[in-house]
Amino acid sequence: MRRLARMSFNQATANNWPLPDVIAGCAQAGVPAVGLWRAPVTEYGLAKAAKLVGDSGLSVTSLCRGGFFSHDDWLTDNRRAIDEAAILGAPTLVLVCGGLGPRTLDDARAHVARAIELLLPHAADAGVRLAIEPMHPMYCSDRSVVSTLDFALVLADPYPADAVGVVIDTYHLWWDDRVWAGIAAAGAAGRIACFQVADWITPLPEGVLLGRGLPGTGCVDFRRFLAAVDAAGYTGPVEVEVFNSGLWARPGPEILRDTIAAYVDHVNQ
Amino acid sequence: MRRLARMSFNQATANNWPLPDVIAGCAQAGVPAVGLWRAPVTEYGLAKAAKLVGDSGLSVTSLCRGGFFSHDDWLTDNRRAIDEAAILGAPTLVLVCGGLGPRTLDDARAHVARAIELLLPHAADAGVRLAIEPMHPMYCSDRSVVSTLDFALVLADPYPADAVGVVIDTYHLWWDDRVWAGIAAAGAAGRIACFQVADWITPLPEGVLLGRGLPGTGCVDFRRFLAAVDAAGYTGPVEVEVFNSGLWARPGPEILRDTIAAYVDHVNQ
Repeated sequence: MRRLARMSFNQATANNWPLPDVIAGCAQAGVPAVGLWRAPVTEYGLAKAAKLVGDSGLSVTSLCRGGFFSHDDWLTDNRRAIDEAAILGAPTLVLVCGGLGPRTLDDARAHVARAIELLLPHAADAGVRLAIEPMHPMYCSDRSVVSTLDFALVLADPYPADAVGVVIDTYHLWWDDRVWAGIAAAGAAGRIACFQVADWITPLPEGVLLGRGLPGTGCVDFRRFLAAVDAAGYTGPVEVEVFNSGLWARPGPEILRDTIAAYVDHVNQ
Repeated sequence: MRRLARMSFNQATANNWPLPDVIAGCAQAGVPAVGLWRAPVTEYGLAKAAKLVGDSGLSVTSLCRGGFFSHDDWLTDNRRAIDEAAILGAPTLVLVCGGLGPRTLDDARAHVARAIELLLPHAADAGVRLAIEPMHPMYCSDRSVVSTLDFALVLADPYPADAVGVVIDTYHLWWDDRVWAGIAAAGAAGRIACFQVADWITPLPEGVLLGRGLPGTGCVDFRRFLAAVDAAGYTGPVEVEVFNSGLWARPGPEILRDTIAAYVDHVNQ
């Protein structure tokens, strides 16, 4: 289906659906691509997962996630994540850069810059692009000290665009009055590595992790975002990635069906 | 006590403590100022509250809150809030500018700009300064579309500094890498109307409203903030304003005692 040509189904949207079912479901529904997560891939078996995806004809748009540079074993773990992305054929490893850990905010941000520099040779060898994901400021202390697209672009700036890009995720960025200029700048620099969509709904749940909405259930202007990344020269996938405990409780096929409908109705009409 | 000379106790920190007890408690503890809220003042009686505070010798550093320009009756209600501030002797009315309501984000922000323009004559007549409070982006959809200090300064810019200022609240701004430049700019323009402190702690509770921490319980660098507002020329009060359901459940005198200790140990040593 042409209207699904750019759609990618991030498997975290149906967090409890087994990987083979996700792959089969997407292939059957005409969704041409998936975003994968390390934990379910590891659980299923990395080589098996790579073969499963390869045989399906689906492409892998991203692997989530590297980063968490505040953890002690970050370098080893991120090199492993890069290797996994390469084996899966994912062009992009999404970096959720980690919270403060024991550091001050400025030091944590400087550490992220250093970590990306240290990771780059391994990523370049593996042919995997690192994609810095600016996350909503409500995650600054515990998930990512990279809180704006502008700051993600500052971190990416020293490196070639095909080595370090950024993720544009509507859930994290919709509130920022500077985001439109940031998207234009990111596009002009060739740095938009992935475009992800989820809607902003309130009230936020405890822990603020599992309260995202399917497109159309909240206040995000998806058409404006899609028009902005398109105008910035981005031609890549539109990944739907929704963490929602209510959605997760439902059967995988229903989640996929409703995600496709939300995508068609509200994102890429 | 000289070390408390700049401290103001915002009554919302002890949300269930009756107003007369707040005033008596602060006076007895040597806290020279309070920040007041409209609902408890109205409940107690506006004129009575004004007399109570006046007799106590305490000063009122701010009244919370005007704003919520997304509500239908915003103009009437905000004029009333201005009048209340004047009667209480509060130099500053804090504006929590409201969420989206039925508007798009851009339209809601334009509406805030228009609302401030429309309110200004009444505020000027009353001798009350409007103080735009940038709030954390996690409140953008439902509480305030003013999400950064930079944007608050854009809104304030057309007006004289003594008519429209901004509130620097550590809870809302700590994550922003642009905040230090913003504080310097706000100070240079004479626009820092109030400095409020609360700490950032996780996990955030459902609804993300009542999860602030007393200074020292989270990750905010209060000394850096105080040094920044001081360096920017601010000489006004340091208001402690903590919304925390656990804290609120405790007796008022204990809350005040712990708030003073947190202030002395972590904010203004």
